[in-house]
Amino acid sequence: MSEGERAEELIDLVQANDLSGIRLWLAEHRPYEIADELSRMDGGEAIIPFRLLDKDRELEVFEELDPGQQQAILLGLRDAAFREILEEMDPDDRARLIGEAPAKIATRALAGLSLSERKMTAALLGYPENSVGRYMTPETVILHRDLAVGRALEVVRAKGADAETIYTLPVVGDGRRMVGTVTLRDLVVNGDERLIKDIVDVFAPRVRASEPVEDAARLMQEANLVSLPVVDSEDRFLGLLTFDDALEIIEAADTEDMARQSGASPVSDHYVTVGVLRLVAARSVWLMLLIVAATLTVNVMQAFESALEAVTALALFVPMLIGTGGNVGAQSATAIVRALAVGEVRVRDLPSVIWKEARVGLLLGLLLAGLALAIGSLLVGPDVALVVACSVIAVCTWAAVIGSAMPLLARKVGVDPAVVSSPMVTTIVDASGLLIYFSIATVVLGV
Amino acid sequence: MSEGERAEELIDLVQANDLSGIRLWLAEHRPYEIADELSRMDGGEAIIPFRLLDKDRELEVFEELDPGQQQAILLGLRDAAFREILEEMDPDDRARLIGEAPAKIATRALAGLSLSERKMTAALLGYPENSVGRYMTPETVILHRDLAVGRALEVVRAKGADAETIYTLPVVGDGRRMVGTVTLRDLVVNGDERLIKDIVDVFAPRVRASEPVEDAARLMQEANLVSLPVVDSEDRFLGLLTFDDALEIIEAADTEDMARQSGASPVSDHYVTVGVLRLVAARSVWLMLLIVAATLTVNVMQAFESALEAVTALALFVPMLIGTGGNVGAQSATAIVRALAVGEVRVRDLPSVIWKEARVGLLLGLLLAGLALAIGSLLVGPDVALVVACSVIAVCTWAAVIGSAMPLLARKVGVDPAVVSSPMVTTIVDASGLLIYFSIATVVLGV
Repeated sequence: MSEGERAEELIDLVQANDLSGIRLWLAEHRPYEIADELSRMDGGEAIIPFRLLDKDRELEVFEELDPGQQQAILLGLRDAAFREILEEMDPDDRARLIGEAPAKIATRALAGLSLSERKMTAALLGYPENSVGRYMTPETVILHRDLAVGRALEVVRAKGADAETIYTLPVVGDGRRMVGTVTLRDLVVNGDERLIKDIVDVFAPRVRASEPVEDAARLMQEANLVSLPVVDSEDRFLGLLTFDDALEIIEAADTEDMARQSGASPVSDHYVTVGVLRLVAARSVWLMLLIVAATLTVNVMQAFESALEAVTALALFVPMLIGTGGNVGAQSATAIVRALAVGEVRVRDLPSVIWKEARVGLLLGLLLAGLALAIGSLLVGPDVALVVACSVIAVCTWAAVIGSAMPLLARKVGVDPAVVSSPMVTTIVDASGLLIYFSIATVVLGV
Repeated sequence: MSEGERAEELIDLVQANDLSGIRLWLAEHRPYEIADELSRMDGGEAIIPFRLLDKDRELEVFEELDPGQQQAILLGLRDAAFREILEEMDPDDRARLIGEAPAKIATRALAGLSLSERKMTAALLGYPENSVGRYMTPETVILHRDLAVGRALEVVRAKGADAETIYTLPVVGDGRRMVGTVTLRDLVVNGDERLIKDIVDVFAPRVRASEPVEDAARLMQEANLVSLPVVDSEDRFLGLLTFDDALEIIEAADTEDMARQSGASPVSDHYVTVGVLRLVAARSVWLMLLIVAATLTVNVMQAFESALEAVTALALFVPMLIGTGGNVGAQSATAIVRALAVGEVRVRDLPSVIWKEARVGLLLGLLLAGLALAIGSLLVGPDVALVVACSVIAVCTWAAVIGSAMPLLARKVGVDPAVVSSPMVTTIVDASGLLIYFSIATVVLGV
C-alpha cells in the first residue's frame, strides 16, 4: 500500500522537526489516515503534527484516536484548545475518554464543559463500563408519532445538523415512550401527507442501556441495523447506538477473545505503543498458573517412573502425544468459543455439541493413530508404536470432549467462555493424556 | 434471553407439524430471529415454516440465511416461488448465492431471471471470490455533479425505492467518472439551491472492485463509513459496499482467523448444521502435518537417550517445559497475527516487533524460571531443577521470537499470517526447546 510509504515520512518529518513538510503531509491525508499515524507515535511526538492541523480537522482526527492516545494529546494542549475539543466531541466518545482517564484529566475535562454537555456526559458515565449506555449517542432527532412526514422532514432539516446521526429516527409517544423507528429513507420516499404513526416500524429491535454493548453490536449485525434505539427500564427513549460504534465494538471484542484464547489478558492500546512491561503483565498471570498446574504432569510421570526406566522408548513419544492431544483440544475449544460468541451455539446445545465433538475427536484420533503407528514402528518397533497409536485415539477423543465442554460449562456458570483458553485446555489434556498413555503402556507392555 | 425459550418451540412445532402454531410463532418474530431458527434446522425441516411466511417477509428472511441454507430452501420451492425470490434479491446477495451453488441450482437460477437482473448478476460474478466486486450493490442512486441540492433530492425521492441504500450518494462527472460522495444528510441539511459540486466530498475514500473485500471492510471501520464507493480501473463508479456487508465480512474474517489460529480450515456454515465429516476434514490436514513434524521431537529425544537413561528425572519435566514454551509462543503469535489483521503492525516493523517480543519472552522466562526452580527442587532436587529453570528462560525467549517472527515473515512472502497457527509455533518450539533443554542438561549435569 502506498500509505505505508508515505507514513514513514510523517515520523521522519516530525523527528526532523520539518514543520512545513508536516503541514503538506497533513493536507494530503484523510483524518483516519492521520489518526493511524499518530497512534504509532508517543504522545510527545504526536502533539507536534496535531497542533498543526486545521481547526475543523483537529476534532475529526482526535475522535479517531484510542482513549490512551487522546489523553496523551490532551496533556500537550493549552487550556483553550483542550476545552474546545472536549466541548465539540460526540458525547459518547467523550464519556468513554473521561471514564478511562486519570482523575486529574477527568476533573479538568469536566470542569471545562458547558452545563448542558456536562450533564449529558455525567448521564452517560452513570452507566457501567461496556454497557450500551456508555456507547449510545443522545444527540438524535426524535419524532413524535402524530407528525406528518412533510413536517417530520422539516424537523430533521432544522435539527439534523446537531445530531450524530439522522438515518434512523426514533419515534416516541407521550412521555418519550418508544414507539418504534422510521428511517430517513422512509421520510424521503413517502408522501408528505402520510402520518409517522402509519409508517413507523414498531417491530424495530431496541435494547436497554444497561445491557452489554457487545450483545447489542452483534444484534445490529444480525438485523442489519444502521442504528439501534436504546431505552430505559420503562421503555423511554435514551439514545442511539450507531453502526460505526458497532463495528469498533465487534472488532475490539474479537481482539479480546483472541488474546484470551491464547491465555493473555486483552491490552486495549495500539500494539506499537504498548510497553514491554504491560505485555508481560498481560501474559504472565495465566502462564504462572499453568506452569504450576503443569506440576501435575511431573507427578504423573513420576508415578510411572519405573515403567519409564524399564522402557525408555516410552519417554520419546511424550512430546508428540501430548502435542497432538493439545492441538485437538485447542481446535474444539476455539470452535465452540467462537460459535458461542456469534450466537450459533447456546448452553442448552451442550449434549449435542459434546456428542458431535466426541465423534470428531474419535475420527481424528483414528486418522492420526495410523500415522503414529507408522512413525513409531519405524523409529522404535511395534510394541511401543501400538501403545502410542492406541493412546492417540483415546487422547484425541478425550481432548475434543474437554475442549468443547469447558467453554459451554463456563458460559453456563456465567463466566466468559473465552477464558477457557487453548493453553488451559492443553494443560489439562497434557496431564490426563499422560495418565491414559502410561495406563495403556502398563496393560499392553506389562511394565 | 426469552428468545431462547420460544426458539425451542419452533423446532417442536415443526416436528409436531402444528401449522397454526408455526404461523403464530412466525407472526410474533422478526425476520432475523426467524432466519436464526431456520439456520439450526436441516433443509427439509426449514422449508415448512418458510413456506408459511407472508410473501413480503419471505424475502427478508431468505436474505438473512447463509448461502448453504438458502440452497436447501430453494430446492424445496416450486418454480414460481423460486424465480420470484431470486428476482427480488439484492444483486450482491444473489451473486454470492449463485457463485457458491452447485451447477444445477445456478443454471436454474440464472435462467429464471429477467434480462436486466441476469446482466447485473453476471457482471458481479465476473469478479473473483472475496473481492469487493462480489459484495457491492449496483442498485444505487447516482447524482451528477452539476445538479442542485433540491433537484438531487427529487431524484432520490423518485429513484430511492429501488436502491439498496440512499444514505451515501455517489457523485459522478461525465462518463460515470467518480467525483466523490454526498450523504443524504448533506442533501437534507443544505439549502435547495446549493450545487452538488460545491458540497461533494472529493476526499471520500473509494476502492477498486478487484481489491480484497476484507481490506475494504476494515477501511470502512477505520473511516466510519456507512457505504464505500467502488470504482473500476479507470475510476468509473460501479457500486457501493454497504455497512451491513462490512459487519458480516469482518465477523466472518475474524471467525476464519480464529479457526486458522487453532490449525483448522475455516468452515463457513452454521456450527449446528455442519456434519462431523466436514469438521474432521477441516481439522485433519494440519493435525496430520503436525504429527509428522512432531517426529522431530522423537528424534531429539532419541539423540539424548543416553542422557535420559542416566538421569530419568530429566524426562519428568519434558511436558512442563515444552508446554510453557508453546504457551509463550502461541501468545506472541496470536498478538502479532491480530495486530497485522487490524493494521496496527506492518511488515517493516519486523525488527522492532521481534526486539520487543524477545524482551517480553525473556522477562516471562525469568518469572517462570523462579517457579520452575521451586517446583523442581521440591520434586527432584537442585541439579535437575537448575537445568529446568535455565531451559525455561532460554525456551521462553526463543518461543516469543519464533511466535512473532513467523506471522511477519508469512505476510512478507504474501501468505495469510493467520496460517501461522499456534499449533505450528508450538510444534517448532517443542523440537527446538527439547534441543535447548538437553544441551543445557549435558553441560550442567555432564551426562
